[in-house]
Amino acid sequence: MIVGILGGGQLARMLALAGFPLGLTFRFLDQAADACAFPLGEALVGRFDDPRLLERLAAGAAVVTYEFENISLRGVESLAPRVPLHPAPRALAVKQDRLREKQLFAELGIPTAAFAPVTSEDELRQAAKRLGFPMVLKTRSQGYDGKGQWIIGEEGALGQAWRRLPRVPLLAEQFIGFDREVSIVAVRGASGEEAYYPLAENVHRQGILLTSRSRPADPAATIAQAYAQRLLAHFDYVGVLALELFQVGGRLLANEFAPRVHNTGHWTIEGAETSQFENHLRAILGFPLGATAPVGAVAMVNCLGKLPDPRRLLGIPGVHLHLYGKAVRPRRKVGHVTIRAADEGDLEAKLREVEAVLAACEA
Amino acid sequence: MIVGILGGGQLARMLALAGFPLGLTFRFLDQAADACAFPLGEALVGRFDDPRLLERLAAGAAVVTYEFENISLRGVESLAPRVPLHPAPRALAVKQDRLREKQLFAELGIPTAAFAPVTSEDELRQAAKRLGFPMVLKTRSQGYDGKGQWIIGEEGALGQAWRRLPRVPLLAEQFIGFDREVSIVAVRGASGEEAYYPLAENVHRQGILLTSRSRPADPAATIAQAYAQRLLAHFDYVGVLALELFQVGGRLLANEFAPRVHNTGHWTIEGAETSQFENHLRAILGFPLGATAPVGAVAMVNCLGKLPDPRRLLGIPGVHLHLYGKAVRPRRKVGHVTIRAADEGDLEAKLREVEAVLAACEA
Repeated sequence: MIVGILGGGQLARMLALAGFPLGLTFRFLDQAADACAFPLGEALVGRFDDPRLLERLAAGAAVVTYEFENISLRGVESLAPRVPLHPAPRALAVKQDRLREKQLFAELGIPTAAFAPVTSEDELRQAAKRLGFPMVLKTRSQGYDGKGQWIIGEEGALGQAWRRLPRVPLLAEQFIGFDREVSIVAVRGASGEEAYYPLAENVHRQGILLTSRSRPADPAATIAQAYAQRLLAHFDYVGVLALELFQVGGRLLANEFAPRVHNTGHWTIEGAETSQFENHLRAILGFPLGATAPVGAVAMVNCLGKLPDPRRLLGIPGVHLHLYGKAVRPRRKVGHVTIRAADEGDLEAKLREVEAVLAACEA
Repeated sequence: MIVGILGGGQLARMLALAGFPLGLTFRFLDQAADACAFPLGEALVGRFDDPRLLERLAAGAAVVTYEFENISLRGVESLAPRVPLHPAPRALAVKQDRLREKQLFAELGIPTAAFAPVTSEDELRQAAKRLGFPMVLKTRSQGYDGKGQWIIGEEGALGQAWRRLPRVPLLAEQFIGFDREVSIVAVRGASGEEAYYPLAENVHRQGILLTSRSRPADPAATIAQAYAQRLLAHFDYVGVLALELFQVGGRLLANEFAPRVHNTGHWTIEGAETSQFENHLRAILGFPLGATAPVGAVAMVNCLGKLPDPRRLLGIPGVHLHLYGKAVRPRRKVGHVTIRAADEGDLEAKLREVEAVLAACEA
């Protein structure tokens, strides 16, 4: 069976590595001729809305899916009548507009930071009055990894900020001084079957995920699952969906969701009975979902902007290296490391070792 | 880094799947144009002693290895001056001759069934006198999965047997009524570092491996490791080596070794901290070895001659499917299933379920 994937980055690559053992083969469409998933399947190079390439992607495929959200919605929608396509374009449509995303959260009773749309300086000033300072501005579309985000610290900075902001629809959000960031990776099968991975506790650096740690007995998991469940049900969703949340005291505030496998679920390759990648494939192919039970105590650290020294990392027992085969660029995600340990104490010690090795390679 | 592999079967395929996360890419040489590892790398189709193809396999490769032993020794040896090559051809040379293999076991003090070379009817009769009946005859080279083996039940059958046996050098062995079959998968790094997986307990059917089960606390492991250690040291070995043994009462008798990753180590993908495939790559690349500690209670069942129904198998929690993408032929290994469970009782129950599904698909 052929699986078509829009996007040929590391998520597509890890989907393929999880899919070969299921007897699947892969076809990728990506704009970059050196997309890192390409060695694992048939490569289609070009725009995500190229009708000829989309037709080729779908030809004979059992299913088509996507690995990131900054792709042509029209292109994806054009595939729907031709080939099974998961997750559904309606989830992608919401995801591509931060305002609609926040409005959907509100509609589903999922708490968020206060927000307001901004298309003019007047709306910016009104939003500031309601949301207070500091205030976060985001482009409504195309942002990721902290790109397309600005923080305005005080009223006096509004005028200058407005002159520097891009002339695109924006979303203003109340700045959240959170206690921690968590995420829940959920999966829903074609028959409506659902499964949830243990809650992940995440640390970002300059807007990019740095570490993600599985927290199997976390008391916040129940409410995070309930929020994710509302999204799955709303979209009649099939596949993996991740929901990122801020914890403020006893409250969880939804930050954003991703209609795809997610960086904060990479630890599931070693740290769960079935990885998020395999479960996404199982879901979109109509196979039964795999168990999401934890396997050991696990944490993941991203390798950002530098290739780590494999000899030093692999000398630490329980370390699993995942390089993506991507060219190195500043702050680019070029790989990740998962640490699996017998217990939390052992994990903590090894995590410190891994961070030391990664810091040394960055110095 | 490019890894060249002589052979493009399922072992090469699983090596590649383990190697991509280490940032490796692969090149395979195989006689079959549809070799199942080919979708995971550069495919070279032709004979294992074709100088042009061997040169291409080695060109720019960080290391060359092999995934099965019925390849041209001369071809392998011709590579040695050009590229790092592991395991060393001296291990392959012994492996390609069952007589030399048994003689080496004897030389290293590793017990085996009594044996004798047979090249004439006279030698056959002398061997029978010494070894008794039933007696096993094997071709000294090219046999695998029970091919090239005959059992002679009584003295009266010797004459007819001789007329039917191929005119190639043979090895006669005492027939062993064993209590069980076990194997030890070992790995040795370039620096001499060694690691051993838990003992596997194996069941064959008609000469082909059917199930393999990890036995982490098995009392026979110590002596099996000691025997494997002698082989590793003798060859100054680098890579994974498997040693198959018969247990008869309290004794272990070596049956054969394999200078490569091994079917009785497939369960290590889910059932050990580091799989045999990753550890073979780590060893031949000079990386530190990974931990071989068990992860859960695990067993593996081969899928022979029929493709199993993925929907039914994947509905059993803890089941991991590994299809090889090979065309189905009678009794051919087309995949395997690993079951990982919390404890031995749970494993036993799930193993029965898996066997029922596989039996149903064979019916």
